[in-house]
Amino acid sequence: MGRLERSALTKFREGGHAWWETAISDVHPGKIILRGEPIEHLIETASYASVVGLLVGNLRLSLVQARLLEAALVAGVDHGVRAPSIAAARMAATCGIPLNCAVATGINLLGDDHGGAGEQCMELLYETATAAAGDAKSLGAAAEKIVAARLGAGQKMPGFGHQLHKERDPRRASMLRLIDEAIAAGEIDGSFARAALALEAALARAKGPTLGMNVDGVTAIVYCELGLPPAAAKGLFCLSRGVGIVAHALEEMRSGARIKGPLPSGDGVKYIGPPEKR
Amino acid sequence: MGRLERSALTKFREGGHAWWETAISDVHPGKIILRGEPIEHLIETASYASVVGLLVGNLRLSLVQARLLEAALVAGVDHGVRAPSIAAARMAATCGIPLNCAVATGINLLGDDHGGAGEQCMELLYETATAAAGDAKSLGAAAEKIVAARLGAGQKMPGFGHQLHKERDPRRASMLRLIDEAIAAGEIDGSFARAALALEAALARAKGPTLGMNVDGVTAIVYCELGLPPAAAKGLFCLSRGVGIVAHALEEMRSGARIKGPLPSGDGVKYIGPPEKR
Amino acid sequence: MGRLERSALTKFREGGHAWWETAISDVHPGKIILRGEPIEHLIETASYASVVGLLVGNLRLSLVQARLLEAALVAGVDHGVRAPSIAAARMAATCGIPLNCAVATGINLLGDDHGGAGEQCMELLYETATAAAGDAKSLGAAAEKIVAARLGAGQKMPGFGHQLHKERDPRRASMLRLIDEAIAAGEIDGSFARAALALEAALARAKGPTLGMNVDGVTAIVYCELGLPPAAAKGLFCLSRGVGIVAHALEEMRSGARIKGPLPSGDGVKYIGPPEKR
Amino acid sequence: MGRLERSALTKFREGGHAWWETAISDVHPGKIILRGEPIEHLIETASYASVVGLLVGNLRLSLVQARLLEAALVAGVDHGVRAPSIAAARMAATCGIPLNCAVATGINLLGDDHGGAGEQCMELLYETATAAAGDAKSLGAAAEKIVAARLGAGQKMPGFGHQLHKERDPRRASMLRLIDEAIAAGEIDGSFARAALALEAALARAKGPTLGMNVDGVTAIVYCELGLPPAAAKGLFCLSRGVGIVAHALEEMRSGARIKGPLPSGDGVKYIGPPEKR
Repeated sequence: MGRLERSALTKFREGGHAWWETAISDVHPGKIILRGEPIEHLIETASYASVVGLLVGNLRLSLVQARLLEAALVAGVDHGVRAPSIAAARMAATCGIPLNCAVATGINLLGDDHGGAGEQCMELLYETATAAAGDAKSLGAAAEKIVAARLGAGQKMPGFGHQLHKERDPRRASMLRLIDEAIAAGEIDGSFARAALALEAALARAKGPTLGMNVDGVTAIVYCELGLPPAAAKGLFCLSRGVGIVAHALEEMRSGARIKGPLPSGDGVKYIGPPEKR
Repeated sequence: MGRLERSALTKFREGGHAWWETAISDVHPGKIILRGEPIEHLIETASYASVVGLLVGNLRLSLVQARLLEAALVAGVDHGVRAPSIAAARMAATCGIPLNCAVATGINLLGDDHGGAGEQCMELLYETATAAAGDAKSLGAAAEKIVAARLGAGQKMPGFGHQLHKERDPRRASMLRLIDEAIAAGEIDGSFARAALALEAALARAKGPTLGMNVDGVTAIVYCELGLPPAAAKGLFCLSRGVGIVAHALEEMRSGARIKGPLPSGDGVKYIGPPEKR
Repeated sequence: MGRLERSALTKFREGGHAWWETAISDVHPGKIILRGEPIEHLIETASYASVVGLLVGNLRLSLVQARLLEAALVAGVDHGVRAPSIAAARMAATCGIPLNCAVATGINLLGDDHGGAGEQCMELLYETATAAAGDAKSLGAAAEKIVAARLGAGQKMPGFGHQLHKERDPRRASMLRLIDEAIAAGEIDGSFARAALALEAALARAKGPTLGMNVDGVTAIVYCELGLPPAAAKGLFCLSRGVGIVAHALEEMRSGARIKGPLPSGDGVKYIGPPEKR
Repeated sequence: MGRLERSALTKFREGGHAWWETAISDVHPGKIILRGEPIEHLIETASYASVVGLLVGNLRLSLVQARLLEAALVAGVDHGVRAPSIAAARMAATCGIPLNCAVATGINLLGDDHGGAGEQCMELLYETATAAAGDAKSLGAAAEKIVAARLGAGQKMPGFGHQLHKERDPRRASMLRLIDEAIAAGEIDGSFARAALALEAALARAKGPTLGMNVDGVTAIVYCELGLPPAAAKGLFCLSRGVGIVAHALEEMRSGARIKGPLPSGDGVKYIGPPEKR
């Protein structure tokens, strides 16, 4: 519980702060300023991804950097109707609530175990890169040690391995190609890409080749390279998978079916409680 | 209630359908296909906005069209901490729930009265364009008639006028400039831009110049020009204002303040119920 | 859109109101007053249902009336794991979000088509009772006319008929028995019970006996007899079905399974979009 | 991540389980069985609190025990409009979404820092009672030790102290009176009441009398005495504070004001970002 040291009220009473303070937006009649940028300027010149970087991360991204962030957002847009977030949003869309509420239902499910691997992988990459301390030679050893410690403790390696895509996550190669290009162009440093590859190699030595980087791993590289904090990852995933959630909820809503549960019939449902009392 | 004619179960029992059907995504080991496009292809070549068009609207947008959609998404990203959606997300972020749940809280508030004007304005633009039937000369008269009918019935004109930006919504001119360029380039037809301008002119004649197009109006033009259905607007706004919601929730969460309500003290709160019973 | 005539800000600027006004609760150091009642008094003497009546409906219920409201809340507590609200809450519970967020997910789905029949049935009962104007003889004719109009327009009769319980909703007889006892004891007037029975009889004549009162119908009688507004029904259903949602979400969460979608495998999922583009 | 050992799919593939399994409810045409009890029986004989005990905790409570659980649910129903959960629900109610979605918004905020103290206090009481091992003489020492350890580590004591009710939480004495009566009647054992009082006394010795039991403390006693698991506490609070959330959301919705943010004007809002770029 150390995360939240003080109540908002205690902090406020210490003085020096307004109740609502933000470095993000300043809005007045005829004016909307976002981190210093007039909205007109953003509308006419900025990509969605660069505005995400600006607002969420306080970043001024170059074109190549913004394109990399955009690719990461695109990579996670959808993974099919069986994902709990998508299915819940579709079910919500049949219950007579507005589309935005169905979308919120889906996003509410992108928690630690459904949408949290990006954040956890970022922490892992920061830890690995810090352990290697910028020394390429020590990177392999650092990765080896971290993998051994995690596996020894029976922990997962967030960002590596995928229940469905056991041989290769189809998003891995494309993202790594874009990442490599950005490194080659000097647009990003590459430390976190190297850290992730070192972890992947250490994992392959320890467990065989089935724990390759998944979508959370390759997008975590991008977010780390751009300097985003791990806590941002879950938010970025909301904007990424949010596209699929909107699309699926709208498709279901427009189908016109009412009150759709997970299954059409009783198959797959089993009561394991006490028998009927008479 | 006419909207949802049949229960999902009744429809399913009529046969010919799987319980979960989608034209959006097909996912198999090593493969993610979105409306026919392999995810690798989208990651390497597609902008976020073009993927939004593809998934949400089943659209294959040109570069200029995708850029227009992107500008519309950028236009609505944030309008300050006093918007209920942003404030609720920030309050949620102080209550010890994951970031995605704080984001979902904000998105849940983008309902008919907070995020619904886009959809309503699209319906208005479709109605106006249909009434004019592609005849430029009849457009002014059609707009005049529609405005008179709405105002006569004491109804609002969604997409026109803004409580704060009384003289001009700062997003209007930039968006219209991009729309004009796209029309000039033959990338969109322009019917809905003309319909919106005709409505704006009719409103100015009836009520003076304070009901110019707002952000919902200029983005509704884009969505209509691209052929999106009105029902999609609320979903697109989730992805647009979602950026601000993520940014604000994250900023509040990282500030470390706990349990933040709307106001620091009792000021502004009034009990109007019966006195204490003794 | 006529429902919400003015923005909160416009209303506030007209003066005479605080921004936050409530007749429900007044809280000061050492004191919590709810509609005039000290919380101590409620804790020691009031049932949950009577506090629901007090806070939600500003009602001071007698013991029998509170017991009737309690029975209505109990009647709707659960209807199995296949209901979208329950299934979505259970899926949410496997995604690594707190229990309250899983519960909120389920409650978010209790919209017009999943939890709205109570409100719609209350409106129907108020309409029927008003049409009969307290005249027992004209009640049958009024019900007949309303049923004919609804069925003629292809509309549903909210509160009557059930997709699963085609012969009899198991909650009907028990609730009617309690309602009858309360009428006999002079605790409620009985007008709305009579209106509901008249509608049921008219429906049986028109469509046969398969559209008996369902749980929404019998609870709507109670809410009308106690003088609650139709708009309250959806809120009461949140507290009623909320019990099942909490129980199911907790059961799923304690099972320890992670990321549970609607179905275990691809069965029941069908892609109907364009083939993979190569 | 240890909490969720296996994916739902992995567990399912090991065999022996249906995808949807529950010991809570079994629903068939004409029949609703809840933990073995026909719904008719519950409607006619069971209080809301006893059904909460049955469904959420698989408990068969006596009348006195159910009354104690009911008092705990009543104790937390509301704490005014400034609580983030209540304010967010009221703001949601002005945004044009259904009442249930406004209620879900409020419940989504009852997270670890807003609605989590009950669960944390239950863990503390279980820890204290276990440390004392049923030996009344060792209880004081155990409490002393636990308090010293927590305070020494700069941690909070969940269930003790209240930001507003500094001298006494008005819910403490009433709840303790009911708890004492239940102990005297042999309906509960009293171990957890004694543990809580021992902790309170140790806290008073360490920090003075301002950290008396709060509502989370006295309700945690009840939940422990009845044998509920700590994980249930957040769910019970949803049903308790849910009453206030429903009442406040409905009051705000019926007021007819549209788009209500936290504050009427710019007062209390401060932009601390970079100046406008020109």
